[in-house]
Amino acid sequence: MRVMADATTSLHVPARKLEAFTARAFEAVGISPAEAQSIAALMVRADLQGSEGHGVFRLPQYIRRIQGGAVNIKPAIRVEREAAGMALVNGDNGMGHLVMRFASEKAIEKAKSAGVAWVGVKWSNHAGPASLYASMPLAHDMVGLYLAVGNANHLPPWGGLDMLLSTNPIAVAVPAGEEPPIILDMATTVAAYGKVKTKAQRGEPMPEGWMMDREGRPLTDPRRANDGFLLPIGGYKGYGLALIFGLLAGTLNGAAMGKDVVDFNADDTTPTNTGHVIVAINVEAFQPVAEFKNNVDALIRDIRASKRLPGVDRVRLPGEGSHAARADRTKNGIPLAAALVASLGQLASELRIAPLA
Amino acid sequence: MRVMADATTSLHVPARKLEAFTARAFEAVGISPAEAQSIAALMVRADLQGSEGHGVFRLPQYIRRIQGGAVNIKPAIRVEREAAGMALVNGDNGMGHLVMRFASEKAIEKAKSAGVAWVGVKWSNHAGPASLYASMPLAHDMVGLYLAVGNANHLPPWGGLDMLLSTNPIAVAVPAGEEPPIILDMATTVAAYGKVKTKAQRGEPMPEGWMMDREGRPLTDPRRANDGFLLPIGGYKGYGLALIFGLLAGTLNGAAMGKDVVDFNADDTTPTNTGHVIVAINVEAFQPVAEFKNNVDALIRDIRASKRLPGVDRVRLPGEGSHAARADRTKNGIPLAAALVASLGQLASELRIAPLA
Repeated sequence: MRVMADATTSLHVPARKLEAFTARAFEAVGISPAEAQSIAALMVRADLQGSEGHGVFRLPQYIRRIQGGAVNIKPAIRVEREAAGMALVNGDNGMGHLVMRFASEKAIEKAKSAGVAWVGVKWSNHAGPASLYASMPLAHDMVGLYLAVGNANHLPPWGGLDMLLSTNPIAVAVPAGEEPPIILDMATTVAAYGKVKTKAQRGEPMPEGWMMDREGRPLTDPRRANDGFLLPIGGYKGYGLALIFGLLAGTLNGAAMGKDVVDFNADDTTPTNTGHVIVAINVEAFQPVAEFKNNVDALIRDIRASKRLPGVDRVRLPGEGSHAARADRTKNGIPLAAALVASLGQLASELRIAPLA
Repeated sequence: MRVMADATTSLHVPARKLEAFTARAFEAVGISPAEAQSIAALMVRADLQGSEGHGVFRLPQYIRRIQGGAVNIKPAIRVEREAAGMALVNGDNGMGHLVMRFASEKAIEKAKSAGVAWVGVKWSNHAGPASLYASMPLAHDMVGLYLAVGNANHLPPWGGLDMLLSTNPIAVAVPAGEEPPIILDMATTVAAYGKVKTKAQRGEPMPEGWMMDREGRPLTDPRRANDGFLLPIGGYKGYGLALIFGLLAGTLNGAAMGKDVVDFNADDTTPTNTGHVIVAINVEAFQPVAEFKNNVDALIRDIRASKRLPGVDRVRLPGEGSHAARADRTKNGIPLAAALVASLGQLASELRIAPLA
């Protein structure tokens, strides 16, 4: 489904053009040209792979938070603690994309000698889709594993009503040989909050099962999102995963977790102290890379060739939707909803930069 | 619920007595007294914490597989590959409990200097509940993370029918200060297969949502388990987690995954080449231990104090059920279902060892 543009699409934009516009916006609020370009490239990479809720859709909000003083535009991103198998990165409240690119490169570098390197991150910010960073080790024949504390608490503990947890995601990217890599990227809630925001912007209802109101009734109107909460996958199990990923990505790194999480959708002035984890796992430390890739390919093919339940057209691998979206959008441009085009137009005039189109 | 014995309970046995009986059984099939004692202690630890499907319930099956030549009773468990942040352990087809104790100790030892150590395991066997090993780093003020490939494929890829995946579990244990540790231990399926077996032994139906038949209809008779498959948590998300955990614990370590997984419930003669991962994360490498524990305590208390949904009596933390079961069973003994008592009695007479009671 993510490959197709929806009915509200008003424009298909080439990635290059969207990237240049995005970089202009960040430069206009004081970020250096090189860093503006880095952030823009990662954000458009999100749109290319179909992660609409985490791509350029977030630009007006990012700019507002920079203008509100919530994000440091000249961060000194640095390693604060380090041992053979780990590092703790202090993002100095910089844009999350820059912080996580730094942390991912650090994890990859360390895993070359350590075999596996776990890099925790504090004082970061929202960094877009989890898979962007989990995928970075792939080019080095490494598995990438990413965890994060989400930037708004919309999940109570199981059975509770206090919003103490976020959609804390996990992403894992596994290199294959001839087949495309397996890339899992999922919130621990049935739906990520970005998807709720996208539904609201498009004026579409949410399916039952995404959210619940405070009396325990299904909530399907995305404009009423503040009257309820997201539901975790598998009930108490998804709650457990959200809690544990938050402890690993937040608490352990000295980053925000629980009631200290700042709702960055509602607040343009407070630093979030966002926590992440990126783990790089060097396949070569475990077995010859070619052997591993052959085995992953064989597994992918066994899964794809599986007999199917009645009515199912195709058995999919995690990441397939993103690979297809990337192929389609690289060729045909990135579909932008009318509401997003309008908000980017408004942003351009506010920032006095050349518009998107 | 796990604290209470059910209606079919015929006996409460002190842990010490159950442990001695279990060790006698392993000695009777040729395992050394010290190793028999180690395995028995871990198995009874499972029963003490309420993990019935993974404790002494498995003893007759373990013994059958040893007698069938499927498991090596004199394994040379060893580190096969090693770098600063990782090791790969070859279990030499020994009992999984011995292999995983070795691997966990290795991870803890390495994490003392490396900060984080990731230990992969191949040529192991079923090792009981995931939380046994995730919990071992706790005593060293470390977080433990465990993944495994399950020992029977009862999960098809999402939309498919071929049994290519198991219930591949994750367990994570996080040390707290004054509060008990947070211990998540979950299958990536709605129910673990051990729970299905327990239901069958007790003659109880399964709730809807645990399993589905090959036409996509709910399956609730545990004796018909072979006519269907387990359901993953959160639909395609749980499928993705089962696949990824299997790639990390199986494929990456050169252990069985996908169609190579041996159904150890149906087969008493074939080695399983079970794969696991244990990661030890040294809190001290990230921040002062006391500070971390204070923060975990505060989070636990915030969660416990959360307002509740109508009809909910208590908001729980992962591991609470196990802590309560351990307290209860340490004091009052371990409740054994009548069918289990009978099968242990039969085992005693087959092995010509002193019976349990």
